Amino acid sequence: VINNFEDLLNKVRGKEAKTIAIAAPEDIETISLVKKAIEAELAQFILVGDEAKTRQLVAEANLDDKFIRFLHKSDHYEAAQTAVEMVIEKSANVIMKGKLHTATFLKAVLNKEKGLNAGKLISQITVCEKVDRPGLLMFTDCAMNISPTLDEKKQIIENAVELGIKLGYEKPKVAALSAVEVVNPAMPDTLDAAALSKMADRGQIKAAVVDGPFAMDNAISPAAAKQKKIAGEVAGNADIVLVPNLQVGNTIHKILPIMGRVKVSAAVMGAKAPIVLTSRADSVETNLLAIALASYIS
Amino acid sequence: VINNFEDLLNKVRGKEAKTIAIAAPEDIETISLVKKAIEAELAQFILVGDEAKTRQLVAEANLDDKFIRFLHKSDHYEAAQTAVEMVIEKSANVIMKGKLHTATFLKAVLNKEKGLNAGKLISQITVCEKVDRPGLLMFTDCAMNISPTLDEKKQIIENAVELGIKLGYEKPKVAALSAVEVVNPAMPDTLDAAALSKMADRGQIKAAVVDGPFAMDNAISPAAAKQKKIAGEVAGNADIVLVPNLQVGNTIHKILPIMGRVKVSAAVMGAKAPIVLTSRADSVETNLLAIALASYIS
Repeated sequence: VINNFEDLLNKVRGKEAKTIAIAAPEDIETISLVKKAIEAELAQFILVGDEAKTRQLVAEANLDDKFIRFLHKSDHYEAAQTAVEMVIEKSANVIMKGKLHTATFLKAVLNKEKGLNAGKLISQITVCEKVDRPGLLMFTDCAMNISPTLDEKKQIIENAVELGIKLGYEKPKVAALSAVEVVNPAMPDTLDAAALSKMADRGQIKAAVVDGPFAMDNAISPAAAKQKKIAGEVAGNADIVLVPNLQVGNTIHKILPIMGRVKVSAAVMGAKAPIVLTSRADSVETNLLAIALASYIS
Repeated sequence: VINNFEDLLNKVRGKEAKTIAIAAPEDIETISLVKKAIEAELAQFILVGDEAKTRQLVAEANLDDKFIRFLHKSDHYEAAQTAVEMVIEKSANVIMKGKLHTATFLKAVLNKEKGLNAGKLISQITVCEKVDRPGLLMFTDCAMNISPTLDEKKQIIENAVELGIKLGYEKPKVAALSAVEVVNPAMPDTLDAAALSKMADRGQIKAAVVDGPFAMDNAISPAAAKQKKIAGEVAGNADIVLVPNLQVGNTIHKILPIMGRVKVSAAVMGAKAPIVLTSRADSVETNLLAIALASYIS
């Protein structure tokens, strides 16, 4: 199991460098991130975009281009398409968004014929270190799905379970979150949580233990679970927290670094290869940890 | 303005001790909290409950009863009613819940004839220290209202603004939270946020600046607001964050102490006097800070 982010970084550095294809990398933040990732030995890169502009930024950043390959596509959609092709033909292991619009990027990535579409829901997972014990803790979905249906929540869990297994959990423990730990008809997400628990019991969700509803404290704090007398292996010990909606997920992703100075990484799962969707709202540290995570799991 | 919790505690200690009436205090956690509050010079107490049992617990806790008055009411609802009477006849400044059920307690507190009902919505506010600058930051509602309507959100804001003014903000800055900072018809809370902003512009919400929608980062981080180019005095500088629903609020209240080791206090506003609704799920520190806050604002 990956114990913490230091462990993740060490394990990525110790392996042969993976290749990340970036669509439209021609902006200073992206090139600066590429430089830091190369210096930290997290990956090598194929930069698919406006080649002249990209080369100029690489030169200005004093970035040794030994670990970089350039491909010229000035149109954003074509750049994303070409980056996808790099992954399909196994020249790259991971695809990453540069300065183009997320919608344009995902349109190329999720194209059903030429893209990385695996016929599954795409979802995001925020990752941080567990408190007081080894292991990484996942919250999902904190970025992509606004109000997932029950079936979408199942798929969001499955994507996170796939990540959890890659991070070393044999059978990840999934807590379905609400504001309370009891089933309450006035709170539909408590009903979804109960249904998801039973779906895992019946083998409809595989390779995971799912329980819920939980409030946040009794999902991730053993003391809080004990105090509320909630039994079971998930209570207080969740590896994955399924949030009920994007408002909760986005709040978690944003509040932890600001109010708690908590280190955060993120992954986008459900496609044929890991997707790195860096955001300017995220810190450089978060974006670097997202690159490390994608390198590790690819 | 109250700069931080240390400042709050000092200011409470410096004033004449306020009196808190506790309904049904006859359990060990409550008496232990009373002891800590008296030792910290945060308040004096009227303990309304099973007197023999309460006196025994007070003796066992080696608690000097100089700052305690006992009133015997073994029935929980009657104990709550008597605690309410203490506040109405001004023998007490604050009412606090002991070991009785929250529903029983609130039924007595909010009784329209004999209670502390002010004809307003009752709402909870989670309070913590701002990061990198002085002042207390409020999140509301994190405990009581599950899915507030637009009108209820207005009242939740008004209750928090009342608290904010007592904490020294002349005209509190209120950020209406969603997962995004743009109005999106697929996310009804962004529409509520826009409506609430305009209600404040038109004087329908008084003594506050309200803006929204915001994502958490651009509500409370000046750097994030600047990076997203969101103008206005609230952006990045909110004193009060209105959360869209209880799932978000409860998550904030629970995750900050666990993941970020952030100190948290809480208040319940909307009645004729401050209500302290301590929870066993909260730490002793949180419950003590809630007592300090209620003492300060009463």
